[in-house]
Amino acid sequence: MTTMTDKPPQGARVSVELTKAYRLLNHGPTVLVSAAHEGRRNVMAAAWNMPLDFNPPKVAVVLDKQAYTRALIEASGEFVLSVPPVALIAQVMAAGDQSGRELADKFGECGLTASPASLVSAPLVEGCVAWLECRVLPEPTMADRYDLFLAEVVAAWADPAVFSEGRWHIQQAEQRCLHHVAGGAFFATGEAIKA
Amino acid sequence: MTTMTDKPPQGARVSVELTKAYRLLNHGPTVLVSAAHEGRRNVMAAAWNMPLDFNPPKVAVVLDKQAYTRALIEASGEFVLSVPPVALIAQVMAAGDQSGRELADKFGECGLTASPASLVSAPLVEGCVAWLECRVLPEPTMADRYDLFLAEVVAAWADPAVFSEGRWHIQQAEQRCLHHVAGGAFFATGEAIKA
Repeated sequence: MTTMTDKPPQGARVSVELTKAYRLLNHGPTVLVSAAHEGRRNVMAAAWNMPLDFNPPKVAVVLDKQAYTRALIEASGEFVLSVPPVALIAQVMAAGDQSGRELADKFGECGLTASPASLVSAPLVEGCVAWLECRVLPEPTMADRYDLFLAEVVAAWADPAVFSEGRWHIQQAEQRCLHHVAGGAFFATGEAIKA
Repeated sequence: MTTMTDKPPQGARVSVELTKAYRLLNHGPTVLVSAAHEGRRNVMAAAWNMPLDFNPPKVAVVLDKQAYTRALIEASGEFVLSVPPVALIAQVMAAGDQSGRELADKFGECGLTASPASLVSAPLVEGCVAWLECRVLPEPTMADRYDLFLAEVVAAWADPAVFSEGRWHIQQAEQRCLHHVAGGAFFATGEAIKA
């Protein structure tokens, strides 16, 4: 299945085979986490994420107890991880710096655009280069004790300009992924190298 | 406390303030996981790792049930995460490709050198650019169900040529961290950028 965005400059989205979805996160990018519930939606930045399994694909992500996105995830049982490129660095910082609890729509406040996902209520973030639609695995003790959420990936997408047939092939500086260090200092994904 | 390696070209190791230890992993590098127990030691590669908390610092890492390093970690309750630079890419691949169960000493087989850690039985891997000494948090259900290990970081070190005063300042291509994608394809850490 393939869906098209309504913003051609940001490229098409093509489906990523579920067994290869881990490759969208394996290199350790910072992601945007989005969720929706009963007419409310929100988005936050999260550097603390990783793949957890290949097949079915699972992911782990740390979500602070104060995060409004977490409240929406706990209510809906679903979220999306969107992998933002360098072109969205200002929006990623904005998403990390303010809480959606006090905002009518944090997407708009941060200069981000939401679009519908295929299988979950949480929205995709436009302009990103990869997306993982996730359903939470019920591990409430982990959430309480460590703010740790585990989820199964039920659909995955990528911008075919940078990822196709299971491989990243980033060409432009603006398309590189972001790797947050601390306080607004990031690394961009660097050159591809083979052992 | 500062320890010196016996290999001056690989630089000194300086202590990293525990509250800033997460910055050694925040950008998502692939790590080497090492452990020791009753005279046996081993090392493996792990892309699936992330910080889990700031203070006290905690980490999460996925360790396959077949991994001999995991058996040593389960027996000793301790491990070290070492962050390898591009200069060690061949050794990282070697560590990912074979099991230490059948080797007298996987460190030597992979061209890696172990040196003592300060607080845990697991060894540090020489030539890396950062190190986190970890004690496992007892969450056996997570290990059984997801191969997921959570741990507290009890000491952290970095090569001051690339990380000091809480900041990465990588200058040379060989010193960049590795970000594994799949099957021996990596990204190097790229340029530092500010929002």
